[in-house]
Amino acid sequence: MMKYVYSFNEGDQSMKGLLGGKGANLAEMTRIGLPVPPGFTVTTETCNEYYTKGEKLWPELETEIFQQLAYIEEVTGKKFGDHHRPLLVSVRSGAVVSMPGMMDTILNLGLNDASVIGMAAATKNERFAYDSYRRFIQMFGDVVLGIEKYKFDTLLEKRKLDKGIEQDTDLTTEDLQYLVEAFQKIVLRESKMSFPQDVRVQLLMSVEAVFKSWNNPRANVYRKLNDIPKSLGTAVNIQSMVFGNMGETSGTGVAFTRNPSTGEKLLYGEFLMNAQGEDVVAGIRTPRVIQELGDKMPEVYQEFVDVADLLEAHYKDMQDIEFTIENSKLYLLQTRNGKRTAAAAINIAVEMVGEGVLTKKEAIMRVKPSQLDQLLHPTFDEKALNVATLITKGLPASSGAATGQVYFNGEDVVRINSAGGKAILVRQETSPEDIEGMVASQGILTARGGMTSHAAVVARGMGKCCIAGAGEVRIDEGQKYFKVGNQRYEEGQWISLDGNIGNVYEGKVPTKEPKLIGNFGVLMEWADQFRQLKIRANADTPRDTRQAIKFGAEGIGLCRTEHMFFEGTRINTVRKMIVANNIKDRQRALDQLLPMQKADFIEIFKEMGDRPVTVRLLDPPLHEFLPHGDEDIKELAQALEMTYQSLKEVVSDLKEFNPMLGHRGCRLAVTYPEIYEMQVKAIIEAAIEVKEQHGYNIVPEIMIPLIGEIKELQYIKNVIIKVIDGVIEEKNADLKYLIGTMIEVPRAAITADEIAEEAEFFSFGTNDLTQMTYGFSRDDAGRFISEYREKNILDHDPFQRIDRRGVGRLMEIAVELGRKVKPELKIGICGEHGGDPDSIDLCQELGLDYVSCSPYRVPIARLAAAQSVIKNKDQSKE
Amino acid sequence: MMKYVYSFNEGDQSMKGLLGGKGANLAEMTRIGLPVPPGFTVTTETCNEYYTKGEKLWPELETEIFQQLAYIEEVTGKKFGDHHRPLLVSVRSGAVVSMPGMMDTILNLGLNDASVIGMAAATKNERFAYDSYRRFIQMFGDVVLGIEKYKFDTLLEKRKLDKGIEQDTDLTTEDLQYLVEAFQKIVLRESKMSFPQDVRVQLLMSVEAVFKSWNNPRANVYRKLNDIPKSLGTAVNIQSMVFGNMGETSGTGVAFTRNPSTGEKLLYGEFLMNAQGEDVVAGIRTPRVIQELGDKMPEVYQEFVDVADLLEAHYKDMQDIEFTIENSKLYLLQTRNGKRTAAAAINIAVEMVGEGVLTKKEAIMRVKPSQLDQLLHPTFDEKALNVATLITKGLPASSGAATGQVYFNGEDVVRINSAGGKAILVRQETSPEDIEGMVASQGILTARGGMTSHAAVVARGMGKCCIAGAGEVRIDEGQKYFKVGNQRYEEGQWISLDGNIGNVYEGKVPTKEPKLIGNFGVLMEWADQFRQLKIRANADTPRDTRQAIKFGAEGIGLCRTEHMFFEGTRINTVRKMIVANNIKDRQRALDQLLPMQKADFIEIFKEMGDRPVTVRLLDPPLHEFLPHGDEDIKELAQALEMTYQSLKEVVSDLKEFNPMLGHRGCRLAVTYPEIYEMQVKAIIEAAIEVKEQHGYNIVPEIMIPLIGEIKELQYIKNVIIKVIDGVIEEKNADLKYLIGTMIEVPRAAITADEIAEEAEFFSFGTNDLTQMTYGFSRDDAGRFISEYREKNILDHDPFQRIDRRGVGRLMEIAVELGRKVKPELKIGICGEHGGDPDSIDLCQELGLDYVSCSPYRVPIARLAAAQSVIKNKDQSKE
Repeated sequence: MMKYVYSFNEGDQSMKGLLGGKGANLAEMTRIGLPVPPGFTVTTETCNEYYTKGEKLWPELETEIFQQLAYIEEVTGKKFGDHHRPLLVSVRSGAVVSMPGMMDTILNLGLNDASVIGMAAATKNERFAYDSYRRFIQMFGDVVLGIEKYKFDTLLEKRKLDKGIEQDTDLTTEDLQYLVEAFQKIVLRESKMSFPQDVRVQLLMSVEAVFKSWNNPRANVYRKLNDIPKSLGTAVNIQSMVFGNMGETSGTGVAFTRNPSTGEKLLYGEFLMNAQGEDVVAGIRTPRVIQELGDKMPEVYQEFVDVADLLEAHYKDMQDIEFTIENSKLYLLQTRNGKRTAAAAINIAVEMVGEGVLTKKEAIMRVKPSQLDQLLHPTFDEKALNVATLITKGLPASSGAATGQVYFNGEDVVRINSAGGKAILVRQETSPEDIEGMVASQGILTARGGMTSHAAVVARGMGKCCIAGAGEVRIDEGQKYFKVGNQRYEEGQWISLDGNIGNVYEGKVPTKEPKLIGNFGVLMEWADQFRQLKIRANADTPRDTRQAIKFGAEGIGLCRTEHMFFEGTRINTVRKMIVANNIKDRQRALDQLLPMQKADFIEIFKEMGDRPVTVRLLDPPLHEFLPHGDEDIKELAQALEMTYQSLKEVVSDLKEFNPMLGHRGCRLAVTYPEIYEMQVKAIIEAAIEVKEQHGYNIVPEIMIPLIGEIKELQYIKNVIIKVIDGVIEEKNADLKYLIGTMIEVPRAAITADEIAEEAEFFSFGTNDLTQMTYGFSRDDAGRFISEYREKNILDHDPFQRIDRRGVGRLMEIAVELGRKVKPELKIGICGEHGGDPDSIDLCQELGLDYVSCSPYRVPIARLAAAQSVIKNKDQSKE
Repeated sequence: MMKYVYSFNEGDQSMKGLLGGKGANLAEMTRIGLPVPPGFTVTTETCNEYYTKGEKLWPELETEIFQQLAYIEEVTGKKFGDHHRPLLVSVRSGAVVSMPGMMDTILNLGLNDASVIGMAAATKNERFAYDSYRRFIQMFGDVVLGIEKYKFDTLLEKRKLDKGIEQDTDLTTEDLQYLVEAFQKIVLRESKMSFPQDVRVQLLMSVEAVFKSWNNPRANVYRKLNDIPKSLGTAVNIQSMVFGNMGETSGTGVAFTRNPSTGEKLLYGEFLMNAQGEDVVAGIRTPRVIQELGDKMPEVYQEFVDVADLLEAHYKDMQDIEFTIENSKLYLLQTRNGKRTAAAAINIAVEMVGEGVLTKKEAIMRVKPSQLDQLLHPTFDEKALNVATLITKGLPASSGAATGQVYFNGEDVVRINSAGGKAILVRQETSPEDIEGMVASQGILTARGGMTSHAAVVARGMGKCCIAGAGEVRIDEGQKYFKVGNQRYEEGQWISLDGNIGNVYEGKVPTKEPKLIGNFGVLMEWADQFRQLKIRANADTPRDTRQAIKFGAEGIGLCRTEHMFFEGTRINTVRKMIVANNIKDRQRALDQLLPMQKADFIEIFKEMGDRPVTVRLLDPPLHEFLPHGDEDIKELAQALEMTYQSLKEVVSDLKEFNPMLGHRGCRLAVTYPEIYEMQVKAIIEAAIEVKEQHGYNIVPEIMIPLIGEIKELQYIKNVIIKVIDGVIEEKNADLKYLIGTMIEVPRAAITADEIAEEAEFFSFGTNDLTQMTYGFSRDDAGRFISEYREKNILDHDPFQRIDRRGVGRLMEIAVELGRKVKPELKIGICGEHGGDPDSIDLCQELGLDYVSCSPYRVPIARLAAAQSVIKNKDQSKE
């Protein structure tokens, strides 16, 4: 039979999954002899069971709870609900990962109209007893019964006003007795039930409230944002109360063993005398810094300092400790690894290696890769953020913070930017023709699209803040406004975007620029010592390339050639190529494009030197290069010297119902081989020139996208090899090159053995592979993926983290089949997942050679790749 | 080393793959002692080698050819190119499957200015020698050198005019000598080379011409239409000439052993005296019916009758025989299984069983399933077709022939139909809102879309003629015209569609109605005795259901509920449901829909009786139910009593970039569970009512579409089971039901073991599975799939025939994983492939329980399923 409840004496820190973080640490502190008030933990499994059973408690569970309670009664010599020496308990939630938004704490549970009298007698402190009781009713009313807190507060404030006093502590016993009675009336009125006098009912209702809070909307949103599976469940900790509010030799406080924002090794915290924990949090009285406790109660302070040292040494990590002093005796109520900024995390990890506490391996494991984003992008000033008005939320598609005026098309953004203004580009969804506007913008907001939509991918590549798929935003690009609900936002209005969490705010919120700290480089170097995966970057321009190298990229895993097509005045040449209705005209336009593409490749090869560069040939459908509005078509028709009608026909002819599954990638090259012919010519000529001028060992890797059938690859290889070998022969050059393919169509994964016969490398395009494996359009799925996350159908957004069971299985099949044919086949990944730590883990497990990600994610990938090796080794040792 | 050339003495009929049909049969006739002029065959493998080697002949091949030629010289005592007794040969192509459009025949090869004199001397017939020579130059010029035939003919006609004669036979030796000279001048002028006097050059050029003709556009189109892989290659037959034009005791003819259009057992053919084969075909002289040969040359005729009987008995099939009589001696030049109409095929097969020639099994194998279409749909009058002007070609999406006036939207078609007119619906691509127009139309023509596009699927379901993806057609639905090239076709103009081959004609072409023949039922009955797969139909309405039962369906494998949503006035209730912005309004609309859906299901259950019915819950994205044009939106807004602006917002809000991968199928039910709740309520209430009234054993099979993740299925199952069990309890009914899922998303196939835990049956949705496995949008891929077929990248359209290597492999994985969990899991297929013989073969191999297809394909599926069993058994015996 399942055991639902564990005493603090039964557990230890290893049981975090079952007991939650708080429960496991309370058990651990009990185990190593620290002064922890007795208590017990209802397990996380019980929480899941609660939902399975249709959200009801059940007899066996209740029996176990009251058995454990009896044990506390025995240890403390108090009795739950007793009229003489009543046992009071706290009830706290305790998930495996600490989570804001959930019910947190109920204190003083066990008080009722009778036991409050007993407590007054036993503590010889009537005022204290009634103060505790009114606090309990208020807290119970708020968190268990859902009565808004201000309703109690108003009454309390009114009483103070009536009595002409300012501090809560000036309230007399009579005032408090009056409030107890009044608060009970509020409970009756608001919840249509009397405040429960039965203490067992109080306890069971509170346990249930914790379970329920696991499923409240705020908790769900938090889990979604932080990739916490709902199936983890929360534990409930029930613990004998100790009182910080028993007078001037009592108090309560919290402290970090190091500074959580800088990492400095110095106790960092605060405390309040004659107070309960909630007073510290509530901010009604101003707490004192922890060091002052040394003046007030030197012995207790010294004891706490020693405990803090001991706990840090025990957990080998910076601790966040809660304590209470009851009549000069120190009690520990919680310890946990302290939350910290990215800078503090790095400094602590590196310094702890210096202190001999951690090994390098352990230090590497201590920094969460995704946290590094904070160090690489601007962030908002937190105080300014507190007063900012939230407009809506979207997907945190690209990190950073941005503020600017709203504009609805790329040209306007470019114009504002040239005039020295700051603009946020707001679009339904971006397309390649918006690139210049994206570059000129401070940040990008889209109403559609998911984590791998065009806007998201491109913005991450640029390291630019982007919020995608903000589903509540209704944009009228023609009339130049957007609406959220009934609120309209016009062109030129200021908004601010927090790309780290997806929040959109009204007005200007000031931003802070990122600073790279010294220990960052140290940690990265250590990571490089351990990782096995090579890290490449997705970079399309010389600028991206420089950024990638700066962040430590060892090569380019994906250079998309289409972005080059939009630079400057090239786009009209590209358009000429597209509208050409015979091969001669098309060839003429391609001849004009050749030197431009070649010049780009020369720049990129120069930047990269000996590092490998994978160039993907043209991928998007041609209509993405054409305008779609009538006005734009008219304008372009003039520029191209053709009639509006005939250009309109071309545009509508190229339009597709499902462009993602349409005429794109290698399919274009089957129809128009001359496009790829031009591209490989540009690549090879550039490589030869740079190689000859600089002596770099350049081996261009040419990548054919969207292969699903081996004969596609054979067909295109034949076409391009003729051109390549022609160029090499003509230049009389010595150049090796590789021709490989994306594995991004499910059929390619399934027939990877056939494809490996022709391909010299594979690169997983996990964006498309995810789209087709799930049948989710990255540009449309944003909205229902949120819903899937909320309804617990998806644990993660598969566009952010590779779906191991489906997409991952296809990758595994492809690796197996590919390497069966070519054991040394080089295999990488260049989808957006290349920068996601969990996905990097999968790549390590599958034996890939490299991951490639946006330049700004390269440091994250380096760290994650190292962690993956260390984790896997540790697991294999076990 | 590869052997390129086989003497007729070396082969037999089993070597068809290597020698081609003609070569194998010539060898077989030689083997059984029939009078065949000596010769040899260059193999099909040689043809492939020719293309591999870059379209050049090579020395080893030439050596083998001339060795075989030397053998013929030995047997005949003649010498190739000799000035005294020259050997003449014919060169004929001979693919494995006979194919129009390829180079066919060159006769009299071996003549030149010298050997023609020798031949005149040897045959003592100068006129005959020069006649043969001028024919040869003309044929060589035409088929080897590509000089248009009329250039020779004009000269010949002019000569006759000058001489005042009418018949070719009246030309004198001098005339013919004149023509030989003149023809050689034409050759020199047109081809910039002299007519080759070297007979070896003549031969090698002719062999090459046959190989080249394998790749000409007409041959490519024919292969594509008939699913013939290009890799088969063609053989070349080189045979000693015999002469039907050596005078009045010579002649030539062709005959079928039975009537190829009715199957009647009576020699059916024609002959010409003093003529070569081409004269029969050319139709210059009128041939006589074969029976008249009995009057002219009774002995030869009797010999031929005996040979015909012998060959039919030997091949156990109706034969199509070519013969030549040279100086009263009969020679056989070809025999092959005769082409025949569907009616003849069935009659011959059934009657041959009666004659004791065939077993039932053999008879079943004799009818090509796809041919049955001819018996079930109207066809064009062939004579009328010969004079009709072809406008363009598209995909033959649904069989039949139709003629009508062009209209560009459903309402116009409905209006014309009500007024007693005939309309063809012409659209870019249809959507569910066109259903009424499709019903009212004679046939449908779309510019986009492939073999499983909406238009194609729905039209096949209705048994209505449809041509899809006619890529040259540019439609302006607003201005109501379409263009092909520069030719405009206006609303109201007459066109005709041939759905069997995809041809669009100008004007009215008269159609013939189909007639079912008696032996059809006999053959179907035999097929049912052998097949193992159950055959179900895809049927959405009571009308479809009746049609399906008439054709022998044993159940419904796919009842799409969305088509019901468009019937009559329902659509506006559906739209109310869609635009509802709260659950109350949506529920109100659903409450109105419930009795309508229920009434449909009652009708269908009544029709189907004890037969199983699988109902698929709502699948398409909601925007498909809304209008998109501004005018239509305005109108609808009025009808729904909402503002234009707010309806416009809903429409644009529901619009997706890639609807195929968007918010549809079970994803809708996660967002709006109330839709599926209403649907299952309608199904279950209907089932209970019909069961109670009629006593049928109804077990509704409820199918959830687009599942990709087990939790989707769990979520929806929970929702609908509550409703279902509620209804059953409320009605106090006794009803079993099954809940299953489509396997149509690649991820579902890969995780089929998980899904089988919850699903009570699987049904492969191979349309979507093909779309996602290849990344081909069925609505867009039509155009580039044609190109892929032409460029030999795809052997078949994967939307017509299941791609075994990719999609088939995923199906195999799904069957394995699913049956591992539930060994008895019922698995079927309901994609359009369910009616394709090759795909049915695959289903049989994979051990599926049933295939489901459009009602009009049910007979095809019954026959194909039987053939599959017979083929597989025969193979396993070997």
